Amino acid sequence: MTTIRDVSKLAGVSVATVSRLFNQSGYVSKEAEAAIQAAVAKLNYKPNSIARSLAGKKTAAVALMVPDILNPFFPEIARAAEDAAASQGYTLVLCNTDNNPDKEKMYIEALINKQIDGIIVSSYTISPEQIITLQKRSIPIVVIDNSFPDHPIVTITAANRYGGQLAVQHLLYAGCGKIAHICGPSHVHSARERTLAYEEMCSHLPWFTPSLTASGHFSVAGGYEAMKHIFRQHPDVDGVFAGNDLMAAGALKALHELGVSIPSQIKLIGFDGIRMDMVYPELSTVSQQIYTIGRTAMDYLIRQINNEPIEKRNYELEVELLQKATT
Amino acid sequence: MTTIRDVSKLAGVSVATVSRLFNQSGYVSKEAEAAIQAAVAKLNYKPNSIARSLAGKKTAAVALMVPDILNPFFPEIARAAEDAAASQGYTLVLCNTDNNPDKEKMYIEALINKQIDGIIVSSYTISPEQIITLQKRSIPIVVIDNSFPDHPIVTITAANRYGGQLAVQHLLYAGCGKIAHICGPSHVHSARERTLAYEEMCSHLPWFTPSLTASGHFSVAGGYEAMKHIFRQHPDVDGVFAGNDLMAAGALKALHELGVSIPSQIKLIGFDGIRMDMVYPELSTVSQQIYTIGRTAMDYLIRQINNEPIEKRNYELEVELLQKATT
Repeated sequence: MTTIRDVSKLAGVSVATVSRLFNQSGYVSKEAEAAIQAAVAKLNYKPNSIARSLAGKKTAAVALMVPDILNPFFPEIARAAEDAAASQGYTLVLCNTDNNPDKEKMYIEALINKQIDGIIVSSYTISPEQIITLQKRSIPIVVIDNSFPDHPIVTITAANRYGGQLAVQHLLYAGCGKIAHICGPSHVHSARERTLAYEEMCSHLPWFTPSLTASGHFSVAGGYEAMKHIFRQHPDVDGVFAGNDLMAAGALKALHELGVSIPSQIKLIGFDGIRMDMVYPELSTVSQQIYTIGRTAMDYLIRQINNEPIEKRNYELEVELLQKATT
Repeated sequence: MTTIRDVSKLAGVSVATVSRLFNQSGYVSKEAEAAIQAAVAKLNYKPNSIARSLAGKKTAAVALMVPDILNPFFPEIARAAEDAAASQGYTLVLCNTDNNPDKEKMYIEALINKQIDGIIVSSYTISPEQIITLQKRSIPIVVIDNSFPDHPIVTITAANRYGGQLAVQHLLYAGCGKIAHICGPSHVHSARERTLAYEEMCSHLPWFTPSLTASGHFSVAGGYEAMKHIFRQHPDVDGVFAGNDLMAAGALKALHELGVSIPSQIKLIGFDGIRMDMVYPELSTVSQQIYTIGRTAMDYLIRQINNEPIEKRNYELEVELLQKATT
């Protein structure tokens, strides 16, 4: 039976620090928190306090609103948000909106009426004004995967612009001399940032032309169609930056069918770092810390619920280049 | 603005029937229900009653407990269960147990204390005795993807045995003369049934030998390892039945690496029918009606909550052979 003492020993911190973290009863440095969480994971430790706190508050519930639970990005977010919620005594209500703004509005109204304690929103269509209206009704909100720097809204995003630069730079360093881009929906913040990075990096290069970009709607089928479209016009393309991993997987399928060899003829990189172990060859990507995004969003939501201070509004989490077999 | 009248017209039933279905206020035949649901989907109709009923009951919540939300089977179940719950005024609490029996028990206790109205359980480890103990505490429960025919427990499963037979028969008809099997965990009901089907169909054939079966733990990585293991011992294998799609995707990856051409040298079929559009070539499979399983489970859970009669206990939903590019 693992105890809090074992956790403190492995983490190299005092039992009091572990206890403060578990009970959210005082300051714990980021380093100590990371060490404790690593120890908890390694020892598979299940503090009784989690069970106690979950059992304690009878109606404490927070909601996670996602546009498409079938996109593997969101189950990873859900898993992280749920872990963080449970560890602080909240159950997680899942709301899948199918990218339908009406369904979104309906859900938000219903959640308010049900006295949900707070909402994490991932939406491609919600406006800052809508969110501020909710905040005025005393509903704590954290927005993920979208950013409103000019509004008093807490947002958690990945470094999308920088990540896009990493991806394109990687293709350029690998010797690509004509790089295409499969972009996501232009009304989606993260998609737009990644596309801007591509344009920043490439628009001054001699081979650049707008027809090297095609829209893939963030889906496998969209990426497949976009790749075929681009290849028909530019059979000499030798690098592709897809704005997310699903579109990259679709592009890879199209390139297989076109008989293009990867990475020798065309190099391909995606974005997100979702679990793609079923794709062959394995896809190079710019990886977001998806679990950390979900967990951080929930932590900041619960801080708001508890009226705790939040240092700043817009959190941008680091991304990382993962080179696999397609580049 | 679409109205209930438009739905009734397109579905070819009376307004009263549509209303009975939406309000769950009387008998509606399966055919009428299907027609109405198709019309609702086609017209993208959002009955006010959904918003109303969601807003009505302040604490009405049901929970869905899944072993692994990162397996694409479960987000599809979650989406269906949530749709069904929302349409009857319930929010859906998501519990991801990571296949950890302790986390399962902790969650169940917490849910009971939070006065959740009912639970849909998908678990590889829960025993019928544990479920009956919960039922004695007046917690309505529906179990999916597992079956306890000898106990008074409502279960929804796919026709796993028959589906396994379909898969093997398909390989035999295609001319396969030595068929391997990648099996799931033996303590998982659906995995066991699919393996039994393989053994029923093949154990009397001259080429059959137990070393043609290897365990792939229902994961991509497990399927990959199992395929390599089998191929080392039996390079003359010409058909593979994988007990789920994730393992089939792993096997496909292994066969790509081994330079085996598919389907000419080896034919491969999976099971589940999860969204696998990122896999190339597209995978043949035995498809479960995943959305219907989630929806049916929620419908029967809410019937129990409402003390409505349920005709029988063990529901087995049909499966279907989907021939794609790997056979």
